[in-house]
Amino acid sequence: MSELRQDPWSGEWISFSDHRQARPLEGADGWCPFCPGDPADHEVADRDWDVMVFENRFPALGGPATWPLPHPGYASRPARGHAEVVLYAPDHEAELGSLGVERVARVIEVWADRSTALARDPEVQSILVFENRGREVGATIAHPHGQIYAYPFVPSRIVQQMRAAEAFTRSSGLCLGCEVVARELKDGRRVLAQDAHVLVHVPFAPRFPYEVHLLPRRHVRRLAELSAAERRALAAQLCRLVARYDRLFGFKLPYVMLVHEPPVRGPLAGVAGHLRIAFLPPHRAADRLKVVAGSELGAGAFLTDVLPEVAAERLRQAGS
Amino acid sequence: MSELRQDPWSGEWISFSDHRQARPLEGADGWCPFCPGDPADHEVADRDWDVMVFENRFPALGGPATWPLPHPGYASRPARGHAEVVLYAPDHEAELGSLGVERVARVIEVWADRSTALARDPEVQSILVFENRGREVGATIAHPHGQIYAYPFVPSRIVQQMRAAEAFTRSSGLCLGCEVVARELKDGRRVLAQDAHVLVHVPFAPRFPYEVHLLPRRHVRRLAELSAAERRALAAQLCRLVARYDRLFGFKLPYVMLVHEPPVRGPLAGVAGHLRIAFLPPHRAADRLKVVAGSELGAGAFLTDVLPEVAAERLRQAGS
Repeated sequence: MSELRQDPWSGEWISFSDHRQARPLEGADGWCPFCPGDPADHEVADRDWDVMVFENRFPALGGPATWPLPHPGYASRPARGHAEVVLYAPDHEAELGSLGVERVARVIEVWADRSTALARDPEVQSILVFENRGREVGATIAHPHGQIYAYPFVPSRIVQQMRAAEAFTRSSGLCLGCEVVARELKDGRRVLAQDAHVLVHVPFAPRFPYEVHLLPRRHVRRLAELSAAERRALAAQLCRLVARYDRLFGFKLPYVMLVHEPPVRGPLAGVAGHLRIAFLPPHRAADRLKVVAGSELGAGAFLTDVLPEVAAERLRQAGS
Repeated sequence: MSELRQDPWSGEWISFSDHRQARPLEGADGWCPFCPGDPADHEVADRDWDVMVFENRFPALGGPATWPLPHPGYASRPARGHAEVVLYAPDHEAELGSLGVERVARVIEVWADRSTALARDPEVQSILVFENRGREVGATIAHPHGQIYAYPFVPSRIVQQMRAAEAFTRSSGLCLGCEVVARELKDGRRVLAQDAHVLVHVPFAPRFPYEVHLLPRRHVRRLAELSAAERRALAAQLCRLVARYDRLFGFKLPYVMLVHEPPVRGPLAGVAGHLRIAFLPPHRAADRLKVVAGSELGAGAFLTDVLPEVAAERLRQAGS
């Protein structure tokens, strides 16, 4: 059973799912539930597909909807919504960096289609397409895949970001994303790559040392608004970025990838949010991780020991 | 040089300190910079003290105040403020769970004194006393110690918490902390311990499975407002909780400890915040960590796979 509870101290909704401790870990013997195989213990039987989407069998959202026990004084409700898994390829060794532009463009198309479809559920308020790559960010299965969460509320960080975008537009009349594209292209010190459609850069104030953002240059709010040419350009830049990451320290760099789209319902759905894909690798050096601890968890105040301009230079030197 | 930059996407201030990569790690040969020893490579020479406070030599806040280069369009400023280290004992093997009530009460007194002293700096807006225990939460030195950060701004999570407390008081006329104490004592399912002065409980909606909060039962806002009897009771409950944690899985449980006090300056300094000490252990099972990844970093939406009432029962079974 999955249950949403509102933390009275922060106002945040938190999901509790007591069935998730049973979720599968990839076996040491090479067994992988996402590789095509016997349906008894594999999600997919055949290999005749390029991208595959299915519901997470151990969902943090959208599981059995038993109404939780009442909690006097507190707010709680069933964890509606959806949790989907997106397999990027039947091949266990594939990944965004080596899949090739055409197939990554197809992955982006699937993200866009699923995001549009999930938004039709009237209980869904906000959607997050993301990928956790590597054990360092909690991936329990190495087979290349991302996830899509459709939340029945607008999560706190999305609220915060939409309010910041709204305040920027109110004071300047501009879209924050369009303005960041203009500023970064003009400054240049944090730019990793650019083409007619997409800007790739280390942001001005990242939470993680080697964080990178990809922005469409045109004012695009959602994945589904990308033209075919923009989708292809984004796919090419995604491939190049992941390949660049893997050369930075000489190993497959773990990361959290986030696709930021504005909420689909609620008072913030109308904000002029600009589509943005963020990569957050936890490494701060080849042998050290940036750990989210006291200041980050307690105050929301991130500390970073690499200047963004230095990170950008190192990433440029890792080649494109 | 340390610099604060405001992330335009979230409005959060982030600290960048390029000297921190050089901070010491405890040596494999047993060398520890916090054990009393030769002043050439130790912070303290003699053993004749119980609690010791000094400025962090690799501060994320309050380092050399060179004004950063201008960043057109973005907000940045020198990272003023303070970062202090609090050594709990000269003994490398000491810790909150075994130090004894008298000495932990002395640690709390030092936290209160330093918090009061740092609040006198007119540039300081918010103070966080915390401890990162264990490599899993990024502690690079095992010698028992906590830290105090004095921020020259009110960090985003503190803003969020103070707004939630303010909204609760506006709608109910009550202090949120006082009300949580009453609710938890009445419900009882999440209570681990209580005495005349302090309530220890698993919160209704924790971010981490074995998170525990300690609250003074009286309406106390800051450490410095605790009476001697309350400080002593809090010390005894801290010792018992850490000892309990260490029995939960049979090893010294890593944790982030946070002392939540309201901001000392700015529009939220007047909120009726209730002093609260939170322990956030990253383990979700003896051999598995709860990792902060896509949903948490991208949306601020935490997912937990242990129900709080189950966690409370397991912690009660670990004995007091």
